[in-house]
Amino acid sequence: MDRQTIENVVKACNVDTSEGPVDARLQQVVVRLVTDFYQAIEDLDLSQSEVWKGVEALIDMAKADEFALLGSAIGLEHFLDLRADEADAKAGLTGGTPRTIEGPLYVAGAPESTGFARMDDGTEEGKIPTLIIEGKVTDTDGEVLSGAKVEMWHANSNGNYTAQTTMPVGYGLNPEGPLQHMLNKLSRHGQRPAHVHYFISAPGHRKLTTQFNIEGDKYLWDDFAFGTREGLVATAVDVTDEAEIARRGLKGPFKHIQFDVVLQKDKEGAPSTEVERRRASA
Amino acid sequence: MDRQTIENVVKACNVDTSEGPVDARLQQVVVRLVTDFYQAIEDLDLSQSEVWKGVEALIDMAKADEFALLGSAIGLEHFLDLRADEADAKAGLTGGTPRTIEGPLYVAGAPESTGFARMDDGTEEGKIPTLIIEGKVTDTDGEVLSGAKVEMWHANSNGNYTAQTTMPVGYGLNPEGPLQHMLNKLSRHGQRPAHVHYFISAPGHRKLTTQFNIEGDKYLWDDFAFGTREGLVATAVDVTDEAEIARRGLKGPFKHIQFDVVLQKDKEGAPSTEVERRRASA
Repeated sequence: MDRQTIENVVKACNVDTSEGPVDARLQQVVVRLVTDFYQAIEDLDLSQSEVWKGVEALIDMAKADEFALLGSAIGLEHFLDLRADEADAKAGLTGGTPRTIEGPLYVAGAPESTGFARMDDGTEEGKIPTLIIEGKVTDTDGEVLSGAKVEMWHANSNGNYTAQTTMPVGYGLNPEGPLQHMLNKLSRHGQRPAHVHYFISAPGHRKLTTQFNIEGDKYLWDDFAFGTREGLVATAVDVTDEAEIARRGLKGPFKHIQFDVVLQKDKEGAPSTEVERRRASA
Repeated sequence: MDRQTIENVVKACNVDTSEGPVDARLQQVVVRLVTDFYQAIEDLDLSQSEVWKGVEALIDMAKADEFALLGSAIGLEHFLDLRADEADAKAGLTGGTPRTIEGPLYVAGAPESTGFARMDDGTEEGKIPTLIIEGKVTDTDGEVLSGAKVEMWHANSNGNYTAQTTMPVGYGLNPEGPLQHMLNKLSRHGQRPAHVHYFISAPGHRKLTTQFNIEGDKYLWDDFAFGTREGLVATAVDVTDEAEIARRGLKGPFKHIQFDVVLQKDKEGAPSTEVERRRASA
């Protein structure tokens, strides 16, 4: 089928010529995506059965709450970050801690605390390694930002923060789920390296969505979601010094990660870093 | 972002270079669709919030069992029919009753009967118009095909068939559903004209997926699913003749539709008209 015929069909099906009000942006997006889809069907000569197989896989992923994870797996979130980097560079906004993907697993409404937050409930102390995360939030001149808010998916703290938790482990897709089923056919795993997510904001500065990934993880540079970036790799240091253990109020050796965050100053005309997206609430 | 960068990101994210076996066709399709999607995001300069809004609408449609109906609404099913027509023409296969969309509402496993099937349960007789559908299945030379199987979504009959039912009404999307929510923004309704779906098969002939739409319906040529085609419009005739009413064993006037179906002879190398698709079962 030639291009003109495809465009005619798309228009006949998707552009209503009656007089009602139309969301022109939505119409533009629909016409573009549908045209691309039809052209791909034509160029790849997809059979009807192949089309339905794909449609059904998408339905299954959505019903299994894996549709946003599909976005991670095809690199969509990473691609959107690269576009945002490019837009920033064009606007002359450089420096600071790199952004990386939010992922679909943020939960809003966690309790807030100041300076220090203990994120574990203590029941596993001594059984699995305690991890202390420390860091400061500064501007690009190295000045500590007061009033900074640091969200760490499961707990928030403010300003310079210290969080005591247990060592995170990597995330993996449900091995029986429809997304992993698709990835298997592409010889791809569905694993992420151990990581900690962040939203960081401070008055007069651009909100940052980022995460650190932990050095030594098998999947550090082989993340199915492509979230690992240069500048976002943290090292967990084993601390065995008795005095240091005592100072922290712990009973034995622990792991320590230092992850400092540098925010860019906000600027007139800077692209917004606030993303509207459906998020779970505690 | 330039084309080469987009292609590089797509490849880095979607083509695994490890040694595992890969479904090459799936990989080809994923790479094409993801590249198109990224290019569209770039060309339309879609914001991250716009992308997620679209993703969330698709999730909502899938969860509301409206994802396949979205395919109808964007003309996908109609487009696949046009492609099949073109493939047939190239293979020298012409004539016979036109195909049209199956839609997502077929239910397999209905009871079969021969020659006549009463599809209503009689409780509404006299309250809403009785409809008698008659038709014959022939080849392109006009020869009646014995052993033909006619599936009418809710009941099957064989060979020359007569089905007594009640007058079908148009189908409409859930006005509160996510698909209609999207169509509203495009100033589009979600209505289909009154219609009856068919699968028709006969030994040595190509299976046909079609439907007739009923003359006089407001949506006859304004079907949100684009299923109406020339040659597939049937007229419901009011029958008031007392002798004819008595002959049919009815108590009052009825409506009558004649819909004859012509099947093409099967041919070596003809494109298959069997579509694998997930279908409900009774």
